[in-house]
Amino acid sequence: MVHGSTPAHEIVGAHRALGAAGQADMVWGHAAVRDPDGRGLWTKAAGWGMEEITPARVVLLSDDGEILVGDGPRHIEFHIHAALLRARPDVGATVHTHGEAAAAFAALDVPLRPLSHDAVPFLAPDVVRFTATSDLVATRSLGDALADSLGGANGCLIPGHGMVTVGPDIATAVMHAALLERACRIQLMASVNGGPAVWSSEADVAAKQRGLWSATQLSAGYDYLLRKADAQFGELDRADAGS
Amino acid sequence: MVHGSTPAHEIVGAHRALGAAGQADMVWGHAAVRDPDGRGLWTKAAGWGMEEITPARVVLLSDDGEILVGDGPRHIEFHIHAALLRARPDVGATVHTHGEAAAAFAALDVPLRPLSHDAVPFLAPDVVRFTATSDLVATRSLGDALADSLGGANGCLIPGHGMVTVGPDIATAVMHAALLERACRIQLMASVNGGPAVWSSEADVAAKQRGLWSATQLSAGYDYLLRKADAQFGELDRADAGS
Amino acid sequence: MVHGSTPAHEIVGAHRALGAAGQADMVWGHAAVRDPDGRGLWTKAAGWGMEEITPARVVLLSDDGEILVGDGPRHIEFHIHAALLRARPDVGATVHTHGEAAAAFAALDVPLRPLSHDAVPFLAPDVVRFTATSDLVATRSLGDALADSLGGANGCLIPGHGMVTVGPDIATAVMHAALLERACRIQLMASVNGGPAVWSSEADVAAKQRGLWSATQLSAGYDYLLRKADAQFGELDRADAGS
Amino acid sequence: MVHGSTPAHEIVGAHRALGAAGQADMVWGHAAVRDPDGRGLWTKAAGWGMEEITPARVVLLSDDGEILVGDGPRHIEFHIHAALLRARPDVGATVHTHGEAAAAFAALDVPLRPLSHDAVPFLAPDVVRFTATSDLVATRSLGDALADSLGGANGCLIPGHGMVTVGPDIATAVMHAALLERACRIQLMASVNGGPAVWSSEADVAAKQRGLWSATQLSAGYDYLLRKADAQFGELDRADAGS
Repeated sequence: MVHGSTPAHEIVGAHRALGAAGQADMVWGHAAVRDPDGRGLWTKAAGWGMEEITPARVVLLSDDGEILVGDGPRHIEFHIHAALLRARPDVGATVHTHGEAAAAFAALDVPLRPLSHDAVPFLAPDVVRFTATSDLVATRSLGDALADSLGGANGCLIPGHGMVTVGPDIATAVMHAALLERACRIQLMASVNGGPAVWSSEADVAAKQRGLWSATQLSAGYDYLLRKADAQFGELDRADAGS
Repeated sequence: MVHGSTPAHEIVGAHRALGAAGQADMVWGHAAVRDPDGRGLWTKAAGWGMEEITPARVVLLSDDGEILVGDGPRHIEFHIHAALLRARPDVGATVHTHGEAAAAFAALDVPLRPLSHDAVPFLAPDVVRFTATSDLVATRSLGDALADSLGGANGCLIPGHGMVTVGPDIATAVMHAALLERACRIQLMASVNGGPAVWSSEADVAAKQRGLWSATQLSAGYDYLLRKADAQFGELDRADAGS
Repeated sequence: MVHGSTPAHEIVGAHRALGAAGQADMVWGHAAVRDPDGRGLWTKAAGWGMEEITPARVVLLSDDGEILVGDGPRHIEFHIHAALLRARPDVGATVHTHGEAAAAFAALDVPLRPLSHDAVPFLAPDVVRFTATSDLVATRSLGDALADSLGGANGCLIPGHGMVTVGPDIATAVMHAALLERACRIQLMASVNGGPAVWSSEADVAAKQRGLWSATQLSAGYDYLLRKADAQFGELDRADAGS
Repeated sequence: MVHGSTPAHEIVGAHRALGAAGQADMVWGHAAVRDPDGRGLWTKAAGWGMEEITPARVVLLSDDGEILVGDGPRHIEFHIHAALLRARPDVGATVHTHGEAAAAFAALDVPLRPLSHDAVPFLAPDVVRFTATSDLVATRSLGDALADSLGGANGCLIPGHGMVTVGPDIATAVMHAALLERACRIQLMASVNGGPAVWSSEADVAAKQRGLWSATQLSAGYDYLLRKADAQFGELDRADAGS
């Protein structure tokens, strides 16, 4: 398990947790956390898979993408994280993945339904979609447009591309990605025989939105993903972990 | 393999078996057994995944949730187990999971069909569904309502949430969970091209209900899941196993 | 890899290969080979998963189920193998599994189509189905009825239950099981958007039936499954292997 | 990770990467690279699974299939690679697999849609299909017909059989296979509820085709697959690696 709470340790843990949650698409997809000293955002270097991230593969980028700490290369789509952190003072961490179920579900023109607890954080009443482009979010203005589409939501599908999720901290942002992918997967499974046909009532969804995904529950899920990553990918060497 | 037949050992084995059967949803889902001394129910502590349960992560709860043995925290939904054990003197063990196939199938408005041996224990003639809430079963009265819906059945789908299963002993309750998930998964797979279209006749189902899932067969399946858990998750250390 | 060509070694290898091919359903499903000395059939003892079979868990059964060698217990459905071996002098080995894709596909009322090489051995022009019962094939007469349904074919679906396959030798019988399961899985995947819509022409199927699945190809696939089993389940200890 | 850049090392790495990408069908499917000295093509020997390829299981074949280096046996379908290399001077490497999603999607009569980045290299505007035969591409003339169907494209579905992909180098050809399989899988997942209904605009596809899959990105993905193969299958022994 990745101990320590520096931003670099959080980035290492977040990517390993996303890998354990089945969100990897080879070397694409990345998470970021806001620099506590206001210099920009911490994220992974490009070219590595989620389970391969170590402190040596973490970078600090300025809001316009200058590499301030670490060796890069940086992901072209750092603009996703920069824009979401600019637009949302309440957000401390951001995730972008190419989850297969999220990508497939985004290609449907149907609402996300509360078929399980997983969809609940995203319904207001439907999951948000960003449709300005399905190409790389490779400019400041596209990042801003994505942030506009996200508004105050916890996550957003990008048809033709993938998803983004956010949270006040890295545990929440990663858990939102895991929950959105699982919600999409379960709805795809239930999209047979004319289904889905049965889902949580509006009253149930409202009650779940108040009580279900507390910080305690999200943290418990995230800590489990960190432990699962250790079991699946091996623990980081003390040297690699930089501790 | 988890040896010993104390309630704590049964709880350890049950969760490892559920993990090996693919029923895990991070740290959610849990099994319980009736305390042989009438003090309440044994179950897992909250915050751990199924394959992570050791004797140190087992708790004995009173019927109203007081932690009598072990360190907790307890799952909010202990009311599921407490209510089912109150309502069903024939039941010695209970399981609640968020199996993905069960959750997806519960979102359809179609009967569970006997497409394989797996569905047989649940057909009377259809699987029971609990629809009073899809939110947490977090109160005594919701637990009682769930027990009412279950009636004398072996298992119950909860649309928007998951499933519960029961049995006279832990082997049967866990096997019922494994069988219900597999039955739902196979029916989802067969729900294409207007299907399913072919399933066991009423006479076959009646014959299977008499002969198929004997205690011997259920025990053989459960023992296999315990061995598979050892192969998949590693055997418990002697120290962890408390023996 | 399981060396040696005694019937017991063949039974060990066949079950490990079926496990590696993803045909396991806990402790159910089994393969058999004809005893070269005419005493009956070799198969696995009941109560063990496919990857758990060692020479000590192999039994020789007479045609009416008496245990001649080994410790049992025997599978109730030994009648499947006994009947197929009685009816088909050309058959030296038989397989019965609960493959999930085969079980799901058997619940459709549609022909098996040649969407890939895998379906080819079973089309004459459609895969055979045994519909006299979906309950256990637990009597001599049900075994005989299954053999009647199979006729001269390489495999047969059993709606509500699973499948059987046969071959002149164990490599072929196991490969037929792997191919039938894969054929069913691919057709289920292609059963969307009104599909499948495109498959091999009758002329192609005829050509493939002459040339594709030669003994050399089937043996190459089976040997690979034996090696994959070693990689996945670990090699048999020399002691366990009885050599 | 497979170091070295001889054709034999490239063939070893390519098959391990295809195995890590989930393209294996027992011992079927193979990749080839053009011999830099103009003698023909390097590929794997028949009879081995993708993850089993070592330098000792690599062969150099002349354009008409003579084994010039290595021990064989050769795959009957070497004609696929020979014909594509003859027809496409821009192509340095070729891949043929039986990917399950590609095989299933090829059985539909629907266009491949840009539901994610993965489909982009194959749309002009639809993926090419080779329909002259679904039987083995076992002759020079069938190879030539396949090359004609492929034209200048990056990949081609073969209904009733599988797929081929090409690239200027082995990294690109393997990545094209991984991308085509993933594109097919995501579209199959999205083929529910009348879907897919939403995909990248023509303008987005054009922009993605210019910028998305640069040599740098393809190489980063391929290098990751090589590392994933090491983690999944174990690193090659120095002796096996021939270094």
